[in-house]
Amino acid sequence: MSAESGLSALLRRRLPILEWGPQYSGQTLVGDLVAAAIVSMMLIPQSLAYALLAGLPPQVGLYAAMAPLLLYAVFGTSRALAVGPEAVGCLMTGAAAAQVAAQGTPEHLGAVVALALLTGLLMIAMGLLRLGFLANFLSHPVVSGFITAAAVQIAAGQLGPLLGINTQGQSLREILESLLPHLGQAKPVTAAIGIAAVVFLLWAKRGIKPLMIRFGLADRPADIVAKAAPAMAIVACTAAVWASGLDARGVAILGTVPAGLPTLAVPPFDPTLWTTLLLPALLIAIVGYVQSISVALTLAAKRRQRVDPDQELIALGVADIGSAASGGLHVAGALSRSAVSFDAGAQTPAAGAFAAVGVGLATLFLTPLLFYLPKTALAALIFVAVLSLVDFAALRPTWMYSRAEFAAMVATMLLTWMDGIESGLMAGVGLSVFLHLYATSRPHVAVIGQIPGTSHFRNVERHEVVTDPEILSLRVDASLYFPNARFIEELVNESVAANPAVRHVILECIAVNTIDLSALESLSAINKRLAEGGISLHLAAVKGPVMDRLKRSHFLQELTGKVHLSQFEAVSSIKPELAASVLQSARVSAVAPSAKPLPDHP
Amino acid sequence: MSAESGLSALLRRRLPILEWGPQYSGQTLVGDLVAAAIVSMMLIPQSLAYALLAGLPPQVGLYAAMAPLLLYAVFGTSRALAVGPEAVGCLMTGAAAAQVAAQGTPEHLGAVVALALLTGLLMIAMGLLRLGFLANFLSHPVVSGFITAAAVQIAAGQLGPLLGINTQGQSLREILESLLPHLGQAKPVTAAIGIAAVVFLLWAKRGIKPLMIRFGLADRPADIVAKAAPAMAIVACTAAVWASGLDARGVAILGTVPAGLPTLAVPPFDPTLWTTLLLPALLIAIVGYVQSISVALTLAAKRRQRVDPDQELIALGVADIGSAASGGLHVAGALSRSAVSFDAGAQTPAAGAFAAVGVGLATLFLTPLLFYLPKTALAALIFVAVLSLVDFAALRPTWMYSRAEFAAMVATMLLTWMDGIESGLMAGVGLSVFLHLYATSRPHVAVIGQIPGTSHFRNVERHEVVTDPEILSLRVDASLYFPNARFIEELVNESVAANPAVRHVILECIAVNTIDLSALESLSAINKRLAEGGISLHLAAVKGPVMDRLKRSHFLQELTGKVHLSQFEAVSSIKPELAASVLQSARVSAVAPSAKPLPDHP
Repeated sequence: MSAESGLSALLRRRLPILEWGPQYSGQTLVGDLVAAAIVSMMLIPQSLAYALLAGLPPQVGLYAAMAPLLLYAVFGTSRALAVGPEAVGCLMTGAAAAQVAAQGTPEHLGAVVALALLTGLLMIAMGLLRLGFLANFLSHPVVSGFITAAAVQIAAGQLGPLLGINTQGQSLREILESLLPHLGQAKPVTAAIGIAAVVFLLWAKRGIKPLMIRFGLADRPADIVAKAAPAMAIVACTAAVWASGLDARGVAILGTVPAGLPTLAVPPFDPTLWTTLLLPALLIAIVGYVQSISVALTLAAKRRQRVDPDQELIALGVADIGSAASGGLHVAGALSRSAVSFDAGAQTPAAGAFAAVGVGLATLFLTPLLFYLPKTALAALIFVAVLSLVDFAALRPTWMYSRAEFAAMVATMLLTWMDGIESGLMAGVGLSVFLHLYATSRPHVAVIGQIPGTSHFRNVERHEVVTDPEILSLRVDASLYFPNARFIEELVNESVAANPAVRHVILECIAVNTIDLSALESLSAINKRLAEGGISLHLAAVKGPVMDRLKRSHFLQELTGKVHLSQFEAVSSIKPELAASVLQSARVSAVAPSAKPLPDHP
Repeated sequence: MSAESGLSALLRRRLPILEWGPQYSGQTLVGDLVAAAIVSMMLIPQSLAYALLAGLPPQVGLYAAMAPLLLYAVFGTSRALAVGPEAVGCLMTGAAAAQVAAQGTPEHLGAVVALALLTGLLMIAMGLLRLGFLANFLSHPVVSGFITAAAVQIAAGQLGPLLGINTQGQSLREILESLLPHLGQAKPVTAAIGIAAVVFLLWAKRGIKPLMIRFGLADRPADIVAKAAPAMAIVACTAAVWASGLDARGVAILGTVPAGLPTLAVPPFDPTLWTTLLLPALLIAIVGYVQSISVALTLAAKRRQRVDPDQELIALGVADIGSAASGGLHVAGALSRSAVSFDAGAQTPAAGAFAAVGVGLATLFLTPLLFYLPKTALAALIFVAVLSLVDFAALRPTWMYSRAEFAAMVATMLLTWMDGIESGLMAGVGLSVFLHLYATSRPHVAVIGQIPGTSHFRNVERHEVVTDPEILSLRVDASLYFPNARFIEELVNESVAANPAVRHVILECIAVNTIDLSALESLSAINKRLAEGGISLHLAAVKGPVMDRLKRSHFLQELTGKVHLSQFEAVSSIKPELAASVLQSARVSAVAPSAKPLPDHP
């Protein structure tokens, strides 16, 4: 391994384009171009809509759909992930920026750009430091509950623009409080356009494709027409407003969208601003990463491709920085567009780059056509898009599997709705950690005895076993660490107090994967207290890594008993007569237990 | 079991005095009275000193040394724990109250009393709800680092009164900042008395007892004289100030301490105040409990007595409420006085009640004598008392055992000193939890193979084993839960990508104590992805409780492979020819593996 080959391996790892680029062929190009065309048709209206969702001028969404896609094509390891603005990330961005400044102000836009930059930097740092495991702190029920809660909140937030009512708020509670009392002020024409668009889009999800096929289209073109439904809805609504002059009758329209590509932007450098945005940026980074990586892994598995989770962090981080540098907002991998891109035959990340070119062309030449686009149509687009993220059905299996995790899930949802996104996520993370520590703080501990005539030891409550009144054998089914250290201490104290004849305590450590300092301190206390009562403490079946660590303390010197290779050896060395009887019976019935051993911990 | 006997068992559990009270004898009385006399001699000056430490009028300390001791005698399960004001609890109380109001104001005193009440209520709630495990969140390195840091900070805080300099601050940094620039303003006479008291008390710890024995005293009276050293120092200093009129020369004295027993006090009910004090009260409750229970358990073990941890929470909580109701501050079990009481022959909690009577008599009749007590002498008393809590020696073994836990310990100490008690403790707790989750997020996973001719499977890297190219067997040495769920997912993905011949993946779950919903979701994803590549997933040696839970999900129906009783059975059912060869060789060499099994996880 020369230094050069190490460097080239590093380069190939950090720039995956070096891997697939040289093999790029004409056939790959066709697949990528078709996918890019379909994705662009979704991406252009979605970018506009998500920008409005975050309370931003529409072009900010378009900017976020160019540079990030080009950069991800260079740095990303997923062949099918479609990055860009997506619903949950935009909701979180909007909520965080609204804490800093009012929507529509330059400070608000500055905060949005700073957030994208900060999120990008955090993701790159996490990738380089291999801190991707931070994403693990979002347990599955918390992520699932949060996405559903965010989607419901986004959908509720669209009801205002959909019906032509001014609403505001960063939580479902606030949104409903500002919406419900003013439902009577809904504008009929706006509402009619919006509701018609919603109905069309809902129908289009299932209805267009069979219709096209009945009209004689082949399967694939029919699919493409179906994917273009949102774009068609936007075009139809815009045309209707323009033709009927509905904007003069109170239908809010998009107005002037500046044409032209984004220029290099420098986010405001303000330490106070950055400090305020640090926690939101971290949450946005983690949520964005969790969504993106799960989409990427799922799609990669379908074609047995590899995705490098640490490199994905770097790629998404670079994409975010690219978005910030071109005046855009935070981006992530979008579930719907990725699936569409994959189905449409995208072969490489170049598909994303081509989609960016599509958005760029639209930004250069199509913005005048967007002038009469009614905002209610964009609201309809978001409303229907986020409905697919709502998954209340996940509540039931969670309840069945674990009441504690169900509680974490529901708490995340309720707090998101009542108090906002950050509270919901933080509460979910805190509760998951707490519930885990609580569950492990009272681990399963079994008093074990010997199955007569064998070297096996089992729970006295589940099996016919032999025990010796002078020996108390305990098997702890958990690692020993601070949440349960004192529990073990109290348990041994009580077990010994209840068995006055005991002279030896053996802890079988077969399920003990670690012993931390708190547990070591407890073991040491147990050892000392037992010694004062004339009882010796033994350990059995201690794993290699645990033993290595114990050797770095004074515990083994203090231990009144010994460390034995197995529970059987421990008992044998304390009571040699037991071993002899087993050897004898083993000669008679050896085959059965050896060829078909009992499961070790039934 | 009648309802009556259930009730009487509950009563005996909640009122341990019903257990030991009826058996109280004359001999027990003598032991308790002697212990009470010695403890009172320590308790009276310490109560005054600790009240000053918390920035309170001295009588508040005396009040905290009466009602709480009487109540603990009724509710406590430890025969030797001496409750009352103690150094760390008073420091924490003073710091929390100072956040609410300036020392010396009625609001400050009100906050102190409210803190004691709140702490008491929290402890009782924790005891009744069996939430004593909350104390486990303070891992050993964090508690140990915190106590040392607090003791150093208390000692540094006494340098001001000791030398006659006004200092202030709630962290070591603030204390030193207000002390060091004014060292030149030390008052010589005050400093002389204080330093003399410190030197005498340090010498007295070791020197008095041998001296008394040389003077002809028996061992026991000599011991009592030694324990009375602090009281003697206080009397001597007070007499010196009174006789020489040193108070007129600038030596700060205690002044008028109101005589008489405390009257019933009602703490201020102010929701804002209570909300502010909730977190400090929780920390005080947990730290107080951890200190008390470890002292109680250690002393109980020496006489093989029982301590009920949940009932201790209730007893300490009631004691705190009693303190609040009589205008006192938070109390806890004090290490030094408990050890003295135990050594002096205390037999029952009545010893504490008798000590309370001693303090009561002093409060009734001795307070005029305290007028000339120089504050520098009380500072000397605290200074010497807390030195025994300083344990920098614990740093080295912690470093040796675990770098991560060492980091948690040092972070706790530094943050306590730089930013205050709450920051230090919270950071320590947070870091402990984080480090634990980090450690378990990348668990040890071994590829395992069969030891030829046996039914045992071992790590391929440590043993000569046989593997089949179509079977990938993995043993995960950890519970599967949210911090490591994704890691396992990625690991299986990568292992399969690296072994294209694989048709079966077997996860041996012998060390898996739980599978949470995140891990279940990952297993489900693994199963689906493997299925798309034509690979089946099997589980082996799943423990009973884990299996019970899996049955409450759809996972077992989706699983492409089977759940096998053991790794051996899994391999045998996939490749029956392997089992046959083992059965054959088992007939030849059955005794050895059966009678002396290899340790299961070397």
